[in-house]
Amino acid sequence: MKKQVSVGIDIGGTNTAIGVVDKEGNIMAEGHTPTLTSVDVKEYLDVLAKTIKDTIAKAGDDLEVMGIGIGAPSSNYYTGEIVGAANLGWGDVVPFVKLLREYFDYPAIVLTNDANSAVVGELMYGGAKGMKDVIMITLGTGVGSGIIVNGELVLGHDGFAGELGHVVMDTNGRMCGCGRKGCLETYASATGIVRTVSELIADTRTPSELRNIAPENITSKMIYDYALKGDEIALEAFEVTGKYLGKAISDFVAFSSPEAIFLFGGLALAGDLIFKPTKKYMEENMCFLYSHKVKLLPSELDGAKIAVLGASAVVWKEIEKMAN
Amino acid sequence: MKKQVSVGIDIGGTNTAIGVVDKEGNIMAEGHTPTLTSVDVKEYLDVLAKTIKDTIAKAGDDLEVMGIGIGAPSSNYYTGEIVGAANLGWGDVVPFVKLLREYFDYPAIVLTNDANSAVVGELMYGGAKGMKDVIMITLGTGVGSGIIVNGELVLGHDGFAGELGHVVMDTNGRMCGCGRKGCLETYASATGIVRTVSELIADTRTPSELRNIAPENITSKMIYDYALKGDEIALEAFEVTGKYLGKAISDFVAFSSPEAIFLFGGLALAGDLIFKPTKKYMEENMCFLYSHKVKLLPSELDGAKIAVLGASAVVWKEIEKMAN
Repeated sequence: MKKQVSVGIDIGGTNTAIGVVDKEGNIMAEGHTPTLTSVDVKEYLDVLAKTIKDTIAKAGDDLEVMGIGIGAPSSNYYTGEIVGAANLGWGDVVPFVKLLREYFDYPAIVLTNDANSAVVGELMYGGAKGMKDVIMITLGTGVGSGIIVNGELVLGHDGFAGELGHVVMDTNGRMCGCGRKGCLETYASATGIVRTVSELIADTRTPSELRNIAPENITSKMIYDYALKGDEIALEAFEVTGKYLGKAISDFVAFSSPEAIFLFGGLALAGDLIFKPTKKYMEENMCFLYSHKVKLLPSELDGAKIAVLGASAVVWKEIEKMAN
Repeated sequence: MKKQVSVGIDIGGTNTAIGVVDKEGNIMAEGHTPTLTSVDVKEYLDVLAKTIKDTIAKAGDDLEVMGIGIGAPSSNYYTGEIVGAANLGWGDVVPFVKLLREYFDYPAIVLTNDANSAVVGELMYGGAKGMKDVIMITLGTGVGSGIIVNGELVLGHDGFAGELGHVVMDTNGRMCGCGRKGCLETYASATGIVRTVSELIADTRTPSELRNIAPENITSKMIYDYALKGDEIALEAFEVTGKYLGKAISDFVAFSSPEAIFLFGGLALAGDLIFKPTKKYMEENMCFLYSHKVKLLPSELDGAKIAVLGASAVVWKEIEKMAN
């Protein structure tokens, strides 16, 4: 019998990563291609399809490819479209699944946004294995989220569920890219913590090396490094970030009462610096019903591979669904 | 072939209502008994079991009873226990399902909290028929909620999901019975709107008949009546209530992107007075992804019967699950 595999694809702003993955989460072959932006999407698809075929060939013989899972920004599972992803420059609505079907006729070709595939990856291969109710929060340039309820991905009636980066923490708060004010993303992301540093510099007289750097040049990694060196503004910035994030999480818990919350992405790599305050404020703000019941955990998956693993995992979920 | 029916039970603080319901949601017989509180729960169960049997007998011959669904406060579906319902006076943890099984051996005997059974009732027999993603918010003395995702009730890993009355709207806000400050329930409930009247009386110089009534004697129904007569404080109180509720809902939507939000309970009966401001502030605060996509609707079920209908509906859901 042939070994069943699925293909996971992670479409980033500059690079596209491809992995041929077996059902146990072993990556059997990897491929890469630049993400050709601001071209006719078909030009990109020609290159992508060829790279997929090459990667499958590299993975070995006697393989049965069950499907392709694609993780991309602003993606809609139901319609198979990438919608309004300005930075990709392929137009406003790209029927990605339909277009990819012109190259492949596998049973399952599915598109989801990156945070959704990440949480499915965590569920199948990572720290959420065996759990049925989980929330993953991705702390990158923005804040994304993927939610599992009753073992299933929460997509919502329109495919856009799980935008927890856009719950409003403060109606008079910071301007958000979405046009509103005070979204979680403006505080708890890599860019949010940089804004927090600027705010602390304005509000306090605390000495800090960060006062000597132009805000546009400050990165979250830099704040992390200064925090490790004991810089008080940097340390306080992590405390403030954890405060907003912990408070937000305590409300998320009242919604789906998950067994665990996973943090993933750049800021999550700061370890105790971000986990300690987040946990503290999460418990402090949580309704007593949930006190000390919800785990706050780092993703167990390799950051460089979670997107590809997750996207491939969505294929198995899809095949499960098709069988029901 | 015998007609399949299920029994729905609504345990309130003073009365217990019983209904024998067919799969189409027709109530074939009804029964009632006082909720005997502050007694050994077995004393109450003796009376309850007898009333259930009488009600089933009244419903007719040739019936096959498939199960009993019980809706009660502070109930846990997974454990079948009523936990910490001080006002019932049966002790801190009451293994209700286990105890009821000593009287009945139907395939499904299930316990859920009232808001959860209400949303299952709405899904099977009310305005949510055919929908897969729905949130019901019950605006009673407190604020409860029942959430459906992918057609299934959201229970969470511990059975306590869906406490949306306890998301925090203002960390420096009103004292809540849960021990924290600023929970949605302190603003958007029948008691919350009374508190809002007191606040408006304190903050404004607006003339109002409500200034002549002791706060303890003001009810939400009274505020409704004064609002209809054009009392400005009463009208403003509904506006403020809708503001908090609408704002909260705009965040709930970012979680599960439901097709519709249903409002149910005393305050929901105020019609446009509550729906108009809630809808306005919901749209105003909502992330653009969801703008004008989410319906805000009143429950279509008879308020006096939804609890019994909902509890009976949970039985069918349970039998569906057992078959999988």
